[in-house]
Amino acid sequence: MRPIAFLLVAIATLAGVIAYIVPASGHADDQAAPINGITIPPGYRDWKLISVAHEEGKLNDLRAVLGNDITVQAYRDGKLPFPDGAIIARLAWSYVPSEENNKVFGRAQSFVAGPPTNVQFMVKDSKKYASTGGWGFAQFKDGKPDTTAQLETCFPCHAPVKARDFVFTQYATTP
Amino acid sequence: MRPIAFLLVAIATLAGVIAYIVPASGHADDQAAPINGITIPPGYRDWKLISVAHEEGKLNDLRAVLGNDITVQAYRDGKLPFPDGAIIARLAWSYVPSEENNKVFGRAQSFVAGPPTNVQFMVKDSKKYASTGGWGFAQFKDGKPDTTAQLETCFPCHAPVKARDFVFTQYATTP
Repeated sequence: MRPIAFLLVAIATLAGVIAYIVPASGHADDQAAPINGITIPPGYRDWKLISVAHEEGKLNDLRAVLGNDITVQAYRDGKLPFPDGAIIARLAWSYVPSEENNKVFGRAQSFVAGPPTNVQFMVKDSKKYASTGGWGFAQFKDGKPDTTAQLETCFPCHAPVKARDFVFTQYATTP
Repeated sequence: MRPIAFLLVAIATLAGVIAYIVPASGHADDQAAPINGITIPPGYRDWKLISVAHEEGKLNDLRAVLGNDITVQAYRDGKLPFPDGAIIARLAWSYVPSEENNKVFGRAQSFVAGPPTNVQFMVKDSKKYASTGGWGFAQFKDGKPDTTAQLETCFPCHAPVKARDFVFTQYATTP
């Protein structure tokens, strides 16, 4: 093989490998800069559901809490503290009334997920984040990390649930 | 090996196989009797998240809509109608205020998933369910199927969203 042909094959192979690495969803959810040493975990949108919630007031959102496999297994085993490698993702969307659903129900009662607000992660690394209960906290909006100053409120707020390893959300029972 | 020893080994092996088949979660989510030809799909609790919602009124729930891989891929590809094999699961839980969260926020604003209410499935089989848009509908409460009479309301209610292949829930954008 001539050097130029070899180079072309090498480039094509590399391109194939890169295409393979990019998540199938096409979401560039691993591109954001790190905050608190945390980047957006690739593929988190497909993690398993832990539970759902609604916050009124200033937040006014609908939220889903997802976990990677280590996290979900720990929940199911009732195992605390969560092991290193556990990551919890809190996704949130604007709380939007659904005209479409309300027409079907015959009354205004239905609220659905509107545009996304932000996404938060709790990353368990008992050594790296020893000063904050073993958890690193991060928040991203439109793929961009929030300021470190905002993150300083995370751990104090989670302190009341120290007995559950600083995690508020409980695993929603299977219907 | 003596017959009795062989029998004991065979029983132990069979027990191992059965233990292996039971889902790791311990949820017996595939045990219910069928309704409309549909049983609870094993492992649906771990399917990928499509979106979340809140219904007020008589339902008064928080809900998550999950999909099997065929469903989620179709959503992402913007591919309608959904292909045969697509299954959509709607899980719902009582809408419960969280005293714990409210203390942290300093105001009553937080609602979480309480006890489960029921789970519904839409199963795509364009031949089997040709008379209802290619979708079979099922609802289970406490693992038991609801009556066929209740299911007769499903398809007429979904008719207004025929243009989206009779599916109300839209895929929630990744934050």
